[in-house]
Amino acid sequence: MYSSSSLWGGRFQEQIASTALEYTESLAVDAAMLTEDVWGSKAHVIMLNAGGIIDDEDARAILSGLGSASREIDEHTFAMDVADEDVHMNVERYVTSRHGKRGARMHTARSRNDQVVTDTRMHTRTLVLGVEQELIALQETLLALATDHADTLTMGYTHTQHAQPITIGYWATAYVSMFRRDLTRLSQAYRSTDINPLGACALAGTSFPTDRRLTTELLGFAAVQENGLDAVSSRDFGLEFLAALAIMVSNTSKMAEEIVYWSTHEFRLVEVADGYAMGSSIMPQKKNPCVAELIRGKTGKVYGRLVELLTTMKGIPTGYNRDLQEDKPPIWEAAASALSTVRTLNGLLSTLRFNEDRMRELAHKNFALATEVADYLVKTQNIPFRECHRIVGEAVGTLYRSGRTFEDVQATVDALAAAGATVTERELAPVLDPVVSVNSHTSLGGTAPAEVLRMVKAERDWLEAHKQTFDERQERIESAFRRTEAVSAAVIAGSSVHDALHSLGGNHHG
Amino acid sequence: MYSSSSLWGGRFQEQIASTALEYTESLAVDAAMLTEDVWGSKAHVIMLNAGGIIDDEDARAILSGLGSASREIDEHTFAMDVADEDVHMNVERYVTSRHGKRGARMHTARSRNDQVVTDTRMHTRTLVLGVEQELIALQETLLALATDHADTLTMGYTHTQHAQPITIGYWATAYVSMFRRDLTRLSQAYRSTDINPLGACALAGTSFPTDRRLTTELLGFAAVQENGLDAVSSRDFGLEFLAALAIMVSNTSKMAEEIVYWSTHEFRLVEVADGYAMGSSIMPQKKNPCVAELIRGKTGKVYGRLVELLTTMKGIPTGYNRDLQEDKPPIWEAAASALSTVRTLNGLLSTLRFNEDRMRELAHKNFALATEVADYLVKTQNIPFRECHRIVGEAVGTLYRSGRTFEDVQATVDALAAAGATVTERELAPVLDPVVSVNSHTSLGGTAPAEVLRMVKAERDWLEAHKQTFDERQERIESAFRRTEAVSAAVIAGSSVHDALHSLGGNHHG
Amino acid sequence: MYSSSSLWGGRFQEQIASTALEYTESLAVDAAMLTEDVWGSKAHVIMLNAGGIIDDEDARAILSGLGSASREIDEHTFAMDVADEDVHMNVERYVTSRHGKRGARMHTARSRNDQVVTDTRMHTRTLVLGVEQELIALQETLLALATDHADTLTMGYTHTQHAQPITIGYWATAYVSMFRRDLTRLSQAYRSTDINPLGACALAGTSFPTDRRLTTELLGFAAVQENGLDAVSSRDFGLEFLAALAIMVSNTSKMAEEIVYWSTHEFRLVEVADGYAMGSSIMPQKKNPCVAELIRGKTGKVYGRLVELLTTMKGIPTGYNRDLQEDKPPIWEAAASALSTVRTLNGLLSTLRFNEDRMRELAHKNFALATEVADYLVKTQNIPFRECHRIVGEAVGTLYRSGRTFEDVQATVDALAAAGATVTERELAPVLDPVVSVNSHTSLGGTAPAEVLRMVKAERDWLEAHKQTFDERQERIESAFRRTEAVSAAVIAGSSVHDALHSLGGNHHG
Amino acid sequence: MYSSSSLWGGRFQEQIASTALEYTESLAVDAAMLTEDVWGSKAHVIMLNAGGIIDDEDARAILSGLGSASREIDEHTFAMDVADEDVHMNVERYVTSRHGKRGARMHTARSRNDQVVTDTRMHTRTLVLGVEQELIALQETLLALATDHADTLTMGYTHTQHAQPITIGYWATAYVSMFRRDLTRLSQAYRSTDINPLGACALAGTSFPTDRRLTTELLGFAAVQENGLDAVSSRDFGLEFLAALAIMVSNTSKMAEEIVYWSTHEFRLVEVADGYAMGSSIMPQKKNPCVAELIRGKTGKVYGRLVELLTTMKGIPTGYNRDLQEDKPPIWEAAASALSTVRTLNGLLSTLRFNEDRMRELAHKNFALATEVADYLVKTQNIPFRECHRIVGEAVGTLYRSGRTFEDVQATVDALAAAGATVTERELAPVLDPVVSVNSHTSLGGTAPAEVLRMVKAERDWLEAHKQTFDERQERIESAFRRTEAVSAAVIAGSSVHDALHSLGGNHHG
Repeated sequence: MYSSSSLWGGRFQEQIASTALEYTESLAVDAAMLTEDVWGSKAHVIMLNAGGIIDDEDARAILSGLGSASREIDEHTFAMDVADEDVHMNVERYVTSRHGKRGARMHTARSRNDQVVTDTRMHTRTLVLGVEQELIALQETLLALATDHADTLTMGYTHTQHAQPITIGYWATAYVSMFRRDLTRLSQAYRSTDINPLGACALAGTSFPTDRRLTTELLGFAAVQENGLDAVSSRDFGLEFLAALAIMVSNTSKMAEEIVYWSTHEFRLVEVADGYAMGSSIMPQKKNPCVAELIRGKTGKVYGRLVELLTTMKGIPTGYNRDLQEDKPPIWEAAASALSTVRTLNGLLSTLRFNEDRMRELAHKNFALATEVADYLVKTQNIPFRECHRIVGEAVGTLYRSGRTFEDVQATVDALAAAGATVTERELAPVLDPVVSVNSHTSLGGTAPAEVLRMVKAERDWLEAHKQTFDERQERIESAFRRTEAVSAAVIAGSSVHDALHSLGGNHHG
Repeated sequence: MYSSSSLWGGRFQEQIASTALEYTESLAVDAAMLTEDVWGSKAHVIMLNAGGIIDDEDARAILSGLGSASREIDEHTFAMDVADEDVHMNVERYVTSRHGKRGARMHTARSRNDQVVTDTRMHTRTLVLGVEQELIALQETLLALATDHADTLTMGYTHTQHAQPITIGYWATAYVSMFRRDLTRLSQAYRSTDINPLGACALAGTSFPTDRRLTTELLGFAAVQENGLDAVSSRDFGLEFLAALAIMVSNTSKMAEEIVYWSTHEFRLVEVADGYAMGSSIMPQKKNPCVAELIRGKTGKVYGRLVELLTTMKGIPTGYNRDLQEDKPPIWEAAASALSTVRTLNGLLSTLRFNEDRMRELAHKNFALATEVADYLVKTQNIPFRECHRIVGEAVGTLYRSGRTFEDVQATVDALAAAGATVTERELAPVLDPVVSVNSHTSLGGTAPAEVLRMVKAERDWLEAHKQTFDERQERIESAFRRTEAVSAAVIAGSSVHDALHSLGGNHHG
Repeated sequence: MYSSSSLWGGRFQEQIASTALEYTESLAVDAAMLTEDVWGSKAHVIMLNAGGIIDDEDARAILSGLGSASREIDEHTFAMDVADEDVHMNVERYVTSRHGKRGARMHTARSRNDQVVTDTRMHTRTLVLGVEQELIALQETLLALATDHADTLTMGYTHTQHAQPITIGYWATAYVSMFRRDLTRLSQAYRSTDINPLGACALAGTSFPTDRRLTTELLGFAAVQENGLDAVSSRDFGLEFLAALAIMVSNTSKMAEEIVYWSTHEFRLVEVADGYAMGSSIMPQKKNPCVAELIRGKTGKVYGRLVELLTTMKGIPTGYNRDLQEDKPPIWEAAASALSTVRTLNGLLSTLRFNEDRMRELAHKNFALATEVADYLVKTQNIPFRECHRIVGEAVGTLYRSGRTFEDVQATVDALAAAGATVTERELAPVLDPVVSVNSHTSLGGTAPAEVLRMVKAERDWLEAHKQTFDERQERIESAFRRTEAVSAAVIAGSSVHDALHSLGGNHHG
Repeated sequence: MYSSSSLWGGRFQEQIASTALEYTESLAVDAAMLTEDVWGSKAHVIMLNAGGIIDDEDARAILSGLGSASREIDEHTFAMDVADEDVHMNVERYVTSRHGKRGARMHTARSRNDQVVTDTRMHTRTLVLGVEQELIALQETLLALATDHADTLTMGYTHTQHAQPITIGYWATAYVSMFRRDLTRLSQAYRSTDINPLGACALAGTSFPTDRRLTTELLGFAAVQENGLDAVSSRDFGLEFLAALAIMVSNTSKMAEEIVYWSTHEFRLVEVADGYAMGSSIMPQKKNPCVAELIRGKTGKVYGRLVELLTTMKGIPTGYNRDLQEDKPPIWEAAASALSTVRTLNGLLSTLRFNEDRMRELAHKNFALATEVADYLVKTQNIPFRECHRIVGEAVGTLYRSGRTFEDVQATVDALAAAGATVTERELAPVLDPVVSVNSHTSLGGTAPAEVLRMVKAERDWLEAHKQTFDERQERIESAFRRTEAVSAAVIAGSSVHDALHSLGGNHHG
């Protein structure tokens, strides 16, 4: 038998207790990064061979074993044994069970301490890109929506009370701005993640002549994480990613809240598509915005995962501590929840029907043009704003108490007169027109359709630039993967590692 | 086809989008409470039949379908279809696919709104008992430890600095006190959970003549949760359970921290058993207290789940909202993590070796008897305590700077004299004996062995009483389950529901 | 000079750094429990004297000094010096600066470790009662509201969509049920808080013949917290209180959310009083439900404080650790925020105007009676519920698409017929009457007015019983305070402590 | 009287309730940004004047009033009235009470919605720089320490168990790496904060011809936050800052934990200076690392504040909602706590005494060279690493059980031989020398002194570059402030605003 406790060497005389094994094993979680683990081992072995730390025969045997593991992983036939504790030991056992003593050299100049965080960073990097991809798609939906509805009138709210008329395009652009900043934060989290701890070994580096720049290149990392003690101890990349996700879901919860309320009988501003609604098992009339509610409700999952990892990281000393094993579940789970949240929100939004009649109706009704009236008095009668504010407030009070609104222009003229400002009905009518109002809000970042379209253009430019960075990152990962595979295949086929590295390009040894 | 959207009736014209279905389905999470769901349906149908809301034939058919579902669930062959969205619809579909129109009556006077929270409460109730059971076992380990080590000398720390000698029994009893309060909190959470929302229907009760006391009895609940709007809206039982678990793991993290540090080469107060330690893949000498580290690290999981549900519950209105679907994952996951944490801590503690020599050595070394010396001066020389504190502090300073400790009694006598207090070596020697010190701390709750044993006795009495409550609760659940099964079987076999209820006992209709 | 570092005795040779002093001092926070600190010292000194640990002269001097401190505290003239680090040292310095050597005996058989947590428990106990008092007042408002509006029709929502008609009384009773459980949790937190750690000393008790039951009685605690190591290490009472508050504010955030949305132009179910609304500096028409928004927003403060203390308690060993100083700010701040939240919600609710016309209008409009129709078909035509659900769903779909509602009874008859169920207009009309519906929901906990009034009665009874416990607790604190003052005064006046304790009653030495 | 409710105009008929006023007012919190508020108003008024929205006379009067407010603020004599609700209204009232109708124009084309978040961003920007400044100072301490101790031997730990010898310089550099990333995150949070929302008005911009680039320049912002709905709704800058702080304190808690444990009698690796330690009120011998404990304990405060704001931001719709008032306390409080934590840690670390003898002793003792031995066997005897690991593990087991360590070289030779590897004492001795080991770890990022010094150099270069950015940001704020003051003074003195803007430089109108 080849159990992990025998891996630990002769210091131990008893097997691990079954309770302890169950509590400490992490195979189900590790499984997500099995591909990264094998890739990492291939790169490590190529480097060991290139540096003369292991010889060609050893490298060939180990790479051959790893290649066969890769195939089984791709075919989902790779069997893991919980007695081997984790994914690293399962892979090593797989190789040694096929290539005996040669396989026993693959862990030279490496520790699980640096190996596990390398795998975690590689997998997290992919998770960041996954969320970004969905968010980019959502941005495209929002930009299209903003373009289509640049001049679709609706009510703008503050305190959930009618404030001033705006356009749906303006509302959509606001979210584009928020999610742009989320993309920026995700991109920064990517940068913090994309550094290579492999070669830190247990915590202090090694006396073997390792070449950390070569593994960095083969694994597609942007840079080396130098100090080994930092490399094995730190999980701030995970915290940074979780924080970015938490902020992002605070934004998705905002849109979800709006969709839930805008779908009510009372608001009726939008109607969710049947495909994004659900009925009731008892009330036959119900059409519930369940998807939006769940988007709102799942905010907790991401917030909670951030708190989880922050708690785990509180007050533990440097060096790898087993507490750190608990870094992966919150990262995996928050990323999955955030990704599906963004994807689902995109679907919900893409199929959302905006009830333009109702939106227009609300923009007209009520007193949302009060600020316009006050501003009009400022501009035309040179009354100080604060005084205009008082006059219009009084007029609104009078109208409200008599059950009327600005729709009754004559009554408004009278109420203003009573409050101290003389305007004619003819003057006032256009001021009370929400379309006129919206069109006039041409200040930088205002709701005027032209300004909305200008912002859409600027955001689209930003997004295109961001997508380029995104594509480059994805391509760097993929080409590094292809190169490691190719070098590995060449070595297995009998090529020397130096020839393989040379003939197969790359920045480092090219 | 019998999809859930057809269940919602004719209000819908499109099928649910696949993204939305994937995002909203909860089968994997629901599966944990499949047994409770079927039990709940049986009780509901028995009640409907007993109240004449459905007739005997209908009841027989539905109960027969449910019985067959139960068997498949027990044999793990019950197949669920994600298109049916949740566990309730899967069970109803199972019955109706076998018993057509009769099955279509099982949802009379019920809503998924009350059904799901009934299932959740039933399952949570079992989870609470599960954690309690492990905690009771841990308490027994600690009480045995405290008895065995009532007079085993060790160092007591404050600020992780040597403070005063105590005994291992005293240390263990401190944890017994903490975990006793955790048990009390869990028990209170149980009481908050153990109330029956079934019969609240959608939110407002019903005009059918339901008998909520009968379902309460058949499901083994202690009481009815009356107001239906409260019943479908509230999840404070889950928050209360999570809060109790969070406080509990703050205590387990405390013990884990101590075991991690006490296992260091520097402390050497304890040695974890091989079965609860792990080695290193690179450093052959390592024996790491990984289990204790993970207990500490997993604190985050439980804290995070509490934050998750608190977040979900923030700012949502009354009535069932789909956000509430997110109540189950944090409850299930925190309970599982907390349960395995307590169980594993028990295993770790049961096999922990206390290094009594090292403990005694530390208790003697250093200046941990300083308070005893000051108290001695107070008692024998009538010097005010604050002055004694100064004298002994000065003496300690003198000794410390000359590299000596209280082990050098003569030097201590000299240093005290220089600081202003005259004592003889013969007087002082017993004061500096940690065994004498510990034995003299006989104040209520003090570390004297006799006092430790008295506390052990009191705690054991409390625990026995608590176990009785625990057993009664477990038995009430089990007997209610058996009775529902028996009534169901009798009805299927042709008995009238009233006869079945009568002949099979119970409090309510007995 | 009498600085705290000289209090620590001769072990130190340098003064504390100013940065460190600023970082570690806690006077502003401690100040809240100055009264409790002096009370605790009086009880301690009475006990020391009663046990012969200090003599009558010493007791008289110290109590006299403490009495004078009490007067200055009451008159807000008690000066504290940050150089004395904390409240305990300031009080001791105050006494010793007046009564020299005698004062120097007051800290005999005590440590700041047990002293600070005693003060904290005493102050927290009062904070718990403070929140309870406001919550009791809120319950009374809600019960009055429920009584007045037992039959005021309104719309009941699920998923924020129209579900079934309910009454305002029913809605109010739902909150009464929630807040009743909050009161229960607060009451449990009180019980966990109300135990006396004084006498634990540094961590291990003492060899002085202390009488912890006497101080327990004089400080009005319900019981002794026995194990000293537990007593100085544990802060679960604070966590339990914070958890109870966090759950409570999840409930206040629920009502706040409803008030915010019900105040919108679109819902118009309620109007907040001018005294609980605010305007806009720019938009003259605005009347914003700011108070309700802040109640919702301040949820974060309480959740955050719970996370704060949970974090602080994670992974620290037993024994007093200075980390524990950080227990007080979250407890003080969360209690203050929660208290003012409940008080303000009470004011908001008491002055809230319910728009009964609008409520009735919504209950009639739309399809909220669909379940009634389905249930009617079940009862009268013996169609299985699931089939009725389909029929009514189809009918609703038909009506909805043609822009009609159940208000058009004939169209409803037709739509039902088309879906497969034959009813007459005369039969259907009462089924579609929300008043009839609400009155018929007489199941236990249903929305029928009679059932609402029954629940109001039951809740009122519970509240009265709870208030009795509340009053007893308040009275126990107050009478214990009076007794300590009286015994203290008697000793100062020359009485022996035993005479004073005897003649002044109490349970312990009575 | 000029109360805020009269500011809201005539819509209101009742004054605010005192409970509501107390609950909603925010003067104490706002006071921190009084200077920013007045600065913002000056810039706004200059812009209004420059754009012809208000005339020269008005501008002169308002700027004069604001100038006088500035002076009172600087002299701490500016009186605020809680009836005016917030800082903005207090300032406006101050101006209007002096300059009547002219003052009443200062709020033209502005809302408190954009004004408050402008102030908050300006103040937060300064708070970010404040924390950065302390962190830069800490980095300098750490770099000096790393330089001085590049070759000071100590024990490196994993799992708090002896792992491999490292140097103190290596340990210090690990923290430099962590805090460098914290600086990067703070710097990113600064960039997210440093955008100007002023001009968003209520939510939709305005029809007045405002010039948002001018106010952006006068307020020293880097850019305009364009979309007005986004500008008034979003607080992600605060969340991002809080997240950066939370991650940072997870790092300070790590160092604090190490200092607490390294100060124990058992570890004795460091001794904290008297100025950063505290004694005990009861135990005269105590010297407690209280400052380090508090650094660890205060982690909760920052984590909690992040959760606070995340909770507040969950599920609220777009538009200013009063919930957003709750953004400032967590930002202010977390920044203050984090700043003093970093400053105090710097003081603690600067005065920490490293016990080099003890460090060297531990590095020699025990089995920390086991990996070196295994690597030696790999290199010299061509045994596969996994096999070497087993051999050395067995040898360690043998030695451990016989109470010996690697200090007994002959015994080690024998134990290795028994496990299957033949080495001579002469060969082995240097392998077992920790100095040799440390010097040989020359891999990139390894613990070899030369490599440590190389990393110190690289980190120092990075820090210098960062300080330049820091200085530029600080200078941009200060010069913008000076320019606003100068333009304001010139206008008051009679200059036209265009002349003033021209003659006083700046990028925008220069």
